Amino acid sequence: MKVILVGAGPGDEELITLKGLKAIQNADVIVYDDLVGKGLLKYAKESAELIYVGKRKGKHSHKQEEINKILVEKAKEGKIVVRLKGGDPFVFGRGGEEILELKKHDIPYEVIPGITSAIAVPEVAGIPVTHRKVATSFTVVTGHEAEDKEHQQVKLSELNADTIIILMGITNLEKHVKELLKNPKRNENTPVAIITDGTTEKQKVVKGTLGNIVEKAKEHDIKPPGVIVVGEVVNVLDKF
Amino acid sequence: MKVILVGAGPGDEELITLKGLKAIQNADVIVYDDLVGKGLLKYAKESAELIYVGKRKGKHSHKQEEINKILVEKAKEGKIVVRLKGGDPFVFGRGGEEILELKKHDIPYEVIPGITSAIAVPEVAGIPVTHRKVATSFTVVTGHEAEDKEHQQVKLSELNADTIIILMGITNLEKHVKELLKNPKRNENTPVAIITDGTTEKQKVVKGTLGNIVEKAKEHDIKPPGVIVVGEVVNVLDKF
Ligand SMILES: C[S@@+](CC[C@H](N)C(=O)[O-])C[C@H]1O[C@@H](n2cnc3c(N)ncnc32)[C@H](O)[C@@H]1O
Ligand SMILES: C[S@@+](CC[C@H](N)C(=O)[O-])C[C@H]1O[C@@H](n2cnc3c(N)ncnc32)[C@H](O)[C@@H]1O
Repeated sequence: MKVILVGAGPGDEELITLKGLKAIQNADVIVYDDLVGKGLLKYAKESAELIYVGKRKGKHSHKQEEINKILVEKAKEGKIVVRLKGGDPFVFGRGGEEILELKKHDIPYEVIPGITSAIAVPEVAGIPVTHRKVATSFTVVTGHEAEDKEHQQVKLSELNADTIIILMGITNLEKHVKELLKNPKRNENTPVAIITDGTTEKQKVVKGTLGNIVEKAKEHDIKPPGVIVVGEVVNVLDKF
Repeated sequence: MKVILVGAGPGDEELITLKGLKAIQNADVIVYDDLVGKGLLKYAKESAELIYVGKRKGKHSHKQEEINKILVEKAKEGKIVVRLKGGDPFVFGRGGEEILELKKHDIPYEVIPGITSAIAVPEVAGIPVTHRKVATSFTVVTGHEAEDKEHQQVKLSELNADTIIILMGITNLEKHVKELLKNPKRNENTPVAIITDGTTEKQKVVKGTLGNIVEKAKEHDIKPPGVIVVGEVVNVLDKF
């Protein structure tokens, strides 16, 4: 009886860790959702039960409570359950919530980190999140505003790190750009990149500035999900 | 002729990616330094040349220019060169500088992301960098102040993200704590954790608050290198 949260990485299947791969190969049950490179499931045992908990046609995603229930039930059957998640389980992956549920039921668990899209998607597109003399700090933030008011989200205008990385931010791009511009560190000329389908063959990179990125995203028909990177690092490797 | 920058992960050898492992297996030359799990070198070809560029006894580390020179020279010999780096090449890993040098010499290169200690070291110690209703943003920053004044580093007091992760910050812990406390979001009771030898069997975790962490670090004889995590996430999974 055990649940292992495994980070699947950002898209390129070969960006799974060796440890994550071994966990997949050893699992009795694999609970997975949309952002997980489907190809990773081929490593599962023949007898493994594969449970999809992503978006259902025309319906919303499975509720977190439903997923928690599946994890607890399957573990209590004595199974080794792998909860496979896109990127890293703890970067907007709700891994912590699942762990709290497992602890409530005294179910042993383990977490295997994954390559997060926040760093690797820019990286593979040629953008380093830090660079000497250019960026010695970076912030990763969600562009999705939670409905509940229990937690006051930090405004993008308040973020002072050299590099700002926004996940789930494309739908409200225009709003985010306005907010980012309220910070005196940034202006219309601050470089921005948007990357969709990062680390995969379908990767799309659009570069611009806070002044023109909204327009450019429209021109290039950029659709979520994607990573937004803001700061001088965007062009730092374009030299020569 | 090619140079591949490979992220080795934070310590646990099994946290290398499948892609990184394949690159190591295929390399003619491997250029590595200290923070790289030595065990990964066992995957190298029998004939591979292994070049150590880390700290030399009683001397400083190899200068970046020396490392750049080795990479260029070996690539120009027609070799497949793997530059193996701790964690992720672009998280305070100077990967960008090496790439600029390779571009200058028209040497083809590739970057394979690695699991960064910034996220994975807290993760494996039970600390999620984000958690719903608790932390929807995190900042990764260096605690090491560069000597040159070309780039004005952001002060820790100016960082407003919910979670602050400081790399290379243990030597100046006391100074950093003072700076962190200048931000009204934080106070003497704000949770802090310090983790050394993260993801390895020697892992050490010390938890406290901004009010007492300096004392606690002394008590537990905490020595660099280590990761410092600041924010409510530090204790969020300790329930039940
Ligand atoms: C719910 S969050 C989960 C993030 C994940 N846990 C991680 O560490 O990468 C999903 C968001 O990650 C980003 N994302 C994940 N994979 C991506 C990819 N291959 N290309 C671009 N963005 C991606 C997008 O911003 C997307 O909306
Ligand atoms: C020069 S930085 C390189 C970071 C690396 N590129 C990464 O992504 O993890 C080295 C710093 O990373 C942190 N670090 C790396 N591995 C660690 C580990 N296993 N445990 C604790 N801290 C670690 C420490 O703060 C150390 O001073």
